Amino acid sequence: MKLTTDKKILIVGLGLIGGSYAKALTKKGYTVSAITKEQQSIDYALSEGIISKGASYPSPELIAEADVAVICLYPTVFIEWIEENQKYFKSGTIITDVTGVKGAVVDKVQSLLRHDLEFISAHPMAGREVSGVVNSDDSIFAGANYVVTPTDKNTDTAIELCSNLGEVLGFARISTLSPKDHDEIIGFVSQLTHCIAVCLMTCQKTEHLEDYTGDSFRDLTRIARLNDEMWSELFLLNKDALIEQMDLFTSELSRLRELLDNNDREGLREMMRYSTARRALFDKKKMEEN
Amino acid sequence: MKLTTDKKILIVGLGLIGGSYAKALTKKGYTVSAITKEQQSIDYALSEGIISKGASYPSPELIAEADVAVICLYPTVFIEWIEENQKYFKSGTIITDVTGVKGAVVDKVQSLLRHDLEFISAHPMAGREVSGVVNSDDSIFAGANYVVTPTDKNTDTAIELCSNLGEVLGFARISTLSPKDHDEIIGFVSQLTHCIAVCLMTCQKTEHLEDYTGDSFRDLTRIARLNDEMWSELFLLNKDALIEQMDLFTSELSRLRELLDNNDREGLREMMRYSTARRALFDKKKMEEN
Repeated sequence: MKLTTDKKILIVGLGLIGGSYAKALTKKGYTVSAITKEQQSIDYALSEGIISKGASYPSPELIAEADVAVICLYPTVFIEWIEENQKYFKSGTIITDVTGVKGAVVDKVQSLLRHDLEFISAHPMAGREVSGVVNSDDSIFAGANYVVTPTDKNTDTAIELCSNLGEVLGFARISTLSPKDHDEIIGFVSQLTHCIAVCLMTCQKTEHLEDYTGDSFRDLTRIARLNDEMWSELFLLNKDALIEQMDLFTSELSRLRELLDNNDREGLREMMRYSTARRALFDKKKMEEN
Repeated sequence: MKLTTDKKILIVGLGLIGGSYAKALTKKGYTVSAITKEQQSIDYALSEGIISKGASYPSPELIAEADVAVICLYPTVFIEWIEENQKYFKSGTIITDVTGVKGAVVDKVQSLLRHDLEFISAHPMAGREVSGVVNSDDSIFAGANYVVTPTDKNTDTAIELCSNLGEVLGFARISTLSPKDHDEIIGFVSQLTHCIAVCLMTCQKTEHLEDYTGDSFRDLTRIARLNDEMWSELFLLNKDALIEQMDLFTSELSRLRELLDNNDREGLREMMRYSTARRALFDKKKMEEN
């Protein structure tokens, strides 16, 4: 099923990502409404024309109107919200999300959901170092990856609709992973990299580092400026997979340390050549897209 | 002493950085010549108007003409080159370099140099993931840091001239560090980050990672595509400082792992808030420049 423009879309949680979804979808001609805690965010989104209706409480009318609902809340709040408000949805509404971890969320939501509703989970891999609807920007989806994480409880119709939502939003690549594979890969490509960035910023007390810094250090620490409430929750909800990835990385770093300690220049060069070849795949991918 | 445009500048080693120096200096009206092994590089630079004269061997005439020589060779080759060719310099020539490690180079060169020449070392903290004079680009210096690393053998005149060279090239910030402090800081901000990037690319054998990757992983691994000949040499020449920085980083990563393992959410958030505050200093600096 394609996400045709007659579908009414409800965004729950109008922050950076929710706001960026709303912006992109409104531009494409969809009718978008929003529910979020801060009346200020609703006022802003209405005045900017990002949404057509909004409420700062779980409005039964707005919920009942939705053909598709995108829940953009932190994982724990997300589950509570569904428990309390699913009664307002009309039969057949498809619910999706933007959560960065899946194992801790997908099964729970699917098992507590009314049987005439369907939850199909997705992870839009895009973001910024700032938050809030005022910083929302639908250009962050261009060139980015969007991962749908179905389970055996999902219908083909919902999977297709959810993938199509990713296309409509402008993502470059849509893929499908099981929640477990998703969490392992995300533990590696996203959470481990945030751990590394944080540790690079906190392990050294040297002042005025910024005066001696090249682009490499700036690149590796861009994401060290992060929302501690959200990221601590994501880390803890994916703790086992993340710890596994940290251990894998740490043991590779200690292998490099050993090559260095043994003055094994050829070993170092081999590792660097392998890393260069693997990284080149990313740039190739990028060139193909442009 | 300022680097006035009547000064004749010789670049030894016309690769990415040497070529970018030549480009920038020629544009500013200096007379630039070059010595490099490949005749092809000389031909290219002459045809592009980047240099006015060049030779693919240590031409005694070109060396004798230089008021300022910038040696852009790998550290070990650099020392050999000075040993073999310093006899051709006229008295009073000031020699500088672009080497990424200082402890292994500065003392050696200064102690073997003729007493009527002066070596003042500097590190231009700029680069690209590609090499060779054909990829040279003088815009890489804008916004970047340039560090002069004098010793007690250097005169104020040479230190001032070398700093002024950094200004002429267009660097955003010129600072001064002892060779030892330089190597410690570089071990951290540059070499450790390259180690991390390499290990991120080599620790996981998962294929098609590029389909599930967000900007964070791309940013952290951009420098994983590197010149293995140069970087293995730089790592080994700064081995002690680099290993110290790796250990510092690894122990911080294991502290984060422990917080995670203990479900210490407040500890994680505190670490993230500290990292966010420290990283914000970099962006503040950048804003001031713009």
